Amino acid sequence: MNAITPPLLRWLRNYNREMLLGDLLAGIIVAIMLVPQGMAYSLLAGLPPRYGLYAAILPLLVYALLGSSRSLAVGPVAIASLMTATTIAPFTTSGEEYAAINAAVHLSLLVGLNMLALRLLRLGSIVNFISHPVIAGFTSAAAVMIILSQLKHLLALDVPRQLHPDQQLWHLLTQLQQTHLPTLLLGMTAMTLLWFSKAHLTSLLQRFTIIRMPLPDWLPALLGRAGPLYAIALTTCAVWLLELAGPVAIVGEIPAGLPELGAIQFEVALLQQLWLPALLIALVGFLESVSVGTALASRRRERVDPNQELIALGSANLAAAVSGTFPVAGGFGRSMVNDSAGAQTTIASLVSALVLMLVVTALTPLFYYLPMATLAAVIIMAVLPLIDLNALVTIWRFNRADGLTLLTTFVLVLMLGVETGILAGIGLSVALLLYRTSQPHIAIVGRVGNSEHFRNEQRHNVNTEQHILAIRIDESLYFANSRYVEDSILQSCSIRPDCRHVVLIFNAVNFLDGSALETLENLVVHLRNRGCTLHLAEVKGPVQDQLARSDLLQHLAPGQIFFTTDEAMKALAPDSAGATRSRR
Amino acid sequence: MNAITPPLLRWLRNYNREMLLGDLLAGIIVAIMLVPQGMAYSLLAGLPPRYGLYAAILPLLVYALLGSSRSLAVGPVAIASLMTATTIAPFTTSGEEYAAINAAVHLSLLVGLNMLALRLLRLGSIVNFISHPVIAGFTSAAAVMIILSQLKHLLALDVPRQLHPDQQLWHLLTQLQQTHLPTLLLGMTAMTLLWFSKAHLTSLLQRFTIIRMPLPDWLPALLGRAGPLYAIALTTCAVWLLELAGPVAIVGEIPAGLPELGAIQFEVALLQQLWLPALLIALVGFLESVSVGTALASRRRERVDPNQELIALGSANLAAAVSGTFPVAGGFGRSMVNDSAGAQTTIASLVSALVLMLVVTALTPLFYYLPMATLAAVIIMAVLPLIDLNALVTIWRFNRADGLTLLTTFVLVLMLGVETGILAGIGLSVALLLYRTSQPHIAIVGRVGNSEHFRNEQRHNVNTEQHILAIRIDESLYFANSRYVEDSILQSCSIRPDCRHVVLIFNAVNFLDGSALETLENLVVHLRNRGCTLHLAEVKGPVQDQLARSDLLQHLAPGQIFFTTDEAMKALAPDSAGATRSRR
Repeated sequence: MNAITPPLLRWLRNYNREMLLGDLLAGIIVAIMLVPQGMAYSLLAGLPPRYGLYAAILPLLVYALLGSSRSLAVGPVAIASLMTATTIAPFTTSGEEYAAINAAVHLSLLVGLNMLALRLLRLGSIVNFISHPVIAGFTSAAAVMIILSQLKHLLALDVPRQLHPDQQLWHLLTQLQQTHLPTLLLGMTAMTLLWFSKAHLTSLLQRFTIIRMPLPDWLPALLGRAGPLYAIALTTCAVWLLELAGPVAIVGEIPAGLPELGAIQFEVALLQQLWLPALLIALVGFLESVSVGTALASRRRERVDPNQELIALGSANLAAAVSGTFPVAGGFGRSMVNDSAGAQTTIASLVSALVLMLVVTALTPLFYYLPMATLAAVIIMAVLPLIDLNALVTIWRFNRADGLTLLTTFVLVLMLGVETGILAGIGLSVALLLYRTSQPHIAIVGRVGNSEHFRNEQRHNVNTEQHILAIRIDESLYFANSRYVEDSILQSCSIRPDCRHVVLIFNAVNFLDGSALETLENLVVHLRNRGCTLHLAEVKGPVQDQLARSDLLQHLAPGQIFFTTDEAMKALAPDSAGATRSRR
Repeated sequence: MNAITPPLLRWLRNYNREMLLGDLLAGIIVAIMLVPQGMAYSLLAGLPPRYGLYAAILPLLVYALLGSSRSLAVGPVAIASLMTATTIAPFTTSGEEYAAINAAVHLSLLVGLNMLALRLLRLGSIVNFISHPVIAGFTSAAAVMIILSQLKHLLALDVPRQLHPDQQLWHLLTQLQQTHLPTLLLGMTAMTLLWFSKAHLTSLLQRFTIIRMPLPDWLPALLGRAGPLYAIALTTCAVWLLELAGPVAIVGEIPAGLPELGAIQFEVALLQQLWLPALLIALVGFLESVSVGTALASRRRERVDPNQELIALGSANLAAAVSGTFPVAGGFGRSMVNDSAGAQTTIASLVSALVLMLVVTALTPLFYYLPMATLAAVIIMAVLPLIDLNALVTIWRFNRADGLTLLTTFVLVLMLGVETGILAGIGLSVALLLYRTSQPHIAIVGRVGNSEHFRNEQRHNVNTEQHILAIRIDESLYFANSRYVEDSILQSCSIRPDCRHVVLIFNAVNFLDGSALETLENLVVHLRNRGCTLHLAEVKGPVQDQLARSDLLQHLAPGQIFFTTDEAMKALAPDSAGATRSRR
């Protein structure tokens, strides 16, 4: 349904000149960022720089037509590029450019198909199982891996891509004396420029005046964001004027126009091999895009539609495959710039794509002398903020299990790779969740004052009856915890030998499975052997429906199901014996 | 601690002559069952019959010393034997007996070590994650596989062990015309005898009198249980007298005494290969034993100690390895017989072991002419009741998810094998649990009459306030459901534009993780944008502790945390504005 009326058509109904101006400006600014970032992320993915430019044209056009976020900037992104790099690393050993590109195109196709399949199977909500700590741990580890992978370009050292991060570091350290100093100097210059323009240029320019007139509001912010352009211009000119090309690795010739697709041969074996990594890239890319899109939309009190995003991002990745390049996603940095530069609709992405097309067809000679070290510097400065120690501290303080998940994911991504690390993180967060629900909190409760409210006797000053044990079970009952709960209840009874009635308060029991039902039946028998009757209270609608389908009620008799704990206590108290009143 | 004072020593303090008589009788009866069952299960495991006898001596002695169940009968069991068969099948291709036995001994060692490791790591409760439907599905599928594997002995056809169940069936059907009729006749006779003595003999004998005196109570029951003995005696005699040996496969010569262990060579590669199947056999064996032990103990109002059982069963399996045979566990059928025949302590197992030792050292010539078909008949009749269609119907009616798990496990065990099937069943039951908690039930509640009790407005006749939306969340909040809950709450608010206060009732929220906390903070902002204030009520102790470690309270203001829903409604109702009273 949504695919039939794309969001863009709805937006265009109220489109006006002001919105067009915003889209034009934002689109051009994002394009200016896209040129160096695209080439840099292509390098990160293990491909020649020009493929990043190809990834910034057709996918953007497709997203512009289908996307549901007004200001999400789709294209090459750091995390997906890193995941591409580790996935296609086995194909880069031969040194043949073709094998790596061939694998990357297969990957784009599979990422796109995976996203569309998730939409078709209505499984988009599966990303909710990638918890925040897993994402935080993975992102930090990915940033470390990305920086390590770029140091070789900065130092002009030769490090095989297939090495583990620790081996890469070791390789770099042992070859440190072979560092090519002019390359390092260019890279450090670029990094300094990037840092300065990001940290200080905007506030400096805001205080700057021309003939006592301050600059227009948008100009300092724009100039502050343009750091990569200064770095590229300065270092390219330096290589050209000082004739450093040769010893300093440069981008070199970029063939004008889009690549021909005829060269790609689709192999079923390759598709099978890349299926799982593609699913992970699809999930992580989707999650990143929807998170950014949601954050931007909520500022306008709008929402992005995750289902529509799966279609839009999936199609954008198919477009990447058609362009003969690597997978794309919605990026954090460029989307922020796009939004703050005034993007009103996805027309901004359309504008970016047109500018990039111009670059690819006519302006590639400008980048001939661009040193690789500058692109490495752009990447390093972009991912440095992703290493987020603060998140670890906050998460650890609130919840040890979350902190453990974050740390484990971080370490395993670095040690065993991206796929294993993410999957282990997801597995651990699920295992910790199961462990937590397998040993639920159980409280003996009593009446608060004269109210109808009952609370834990260990935390509150409450009144309890000698012959009635009211136990609140703080978890749904299912296979993994029903034996534990049975044991805990029987233990609570042993320390109160006077007990004649046990009331289980079910207000936190949200479902029962077959094992739990069996346990309840056993419990009735065990308690009866001790001279106790089991009752239930505050059973919720969905659980009542479940019990109605079983024969627990017959097992329970003479025990009853009371509507409220208050009613149970009044009915079972010795002075009101016989005055039993119950409702289901 | 428990290992230092084994349960047997405690029982012996109050041991008397009456108990000794019970143990002696039960021990002998179980031994009589053990001889045919041991040989039959050995055949099932893919080993020559005598190894089942070896598995019934030393392991029983060890369990007698360490076990915490008074009447659990340890030894060769059907399910563990089947799992052994599928695990060691690759080693039986060569036709060399040695390779299969060597693998089985490695497996026993690993099962024992796995059980002891589970005890050391305090991970015994991991069996709780094997849910009832998984066990039921697996058991039924195992019974089908066991029966299929025995049909070849019954029909005297040659079917390679390595085949899948469907291939085995196909193989049998295509070779059906080569069935050896005398063998089939012997097997059918044995089955008829087994069925008759189990179904009718006891009740028939109970009506029988000698000189108008009825038989003593225990005798008909005992004679009814002795079906395997009649079947063995009759068919063995038939083979001997009619000189059928040769065309009819017989047990043949059994070397007297225990096998020498010198022949076994422990290989690290083999241990690595068998590690996972051994863990599954350990888990399933432990689960079966503890279930049977618990059921028997609860009749005496006693409990078995799962931790002690891990030690006892683990040691029994090490004893099986020392005896040069396959893994053991506590069996269902023999334990029932042991208990009803009057076993008072594990001395009964000691007696059984001694009787078996007598059989192995002196009575093996008695079994020379025993036809294999009889052993197959004993197995088939023993596992037939395990195919439990009734369980499927009951489980399906109570809970579709459980029914789906049962069916999936059943089908996958048959199609992909025991290991894959069990693991897939566990995975599915966990996935369905997660799915259920990822889309929790959410109810808008109102006051029941004039009480302090609040219930779902769609199920009960309740009073609601126009400006206050009281929402009960029926699940703990965590990464997989927090977005869903946020969406549901915002949606509930959209249909009540007059709403000024939203009270989230947390009585079923048992914990929060970091993602949930972030969601709550977002929710405060979203609701504020709509002119609504968020409040919490009935926050439990453990969740209060968590919130105290976060800064949600600051985010919430002017929203509050109310002690009860009643207090929240009174404080927020328009006529009592300003008279806000809250307690944490």
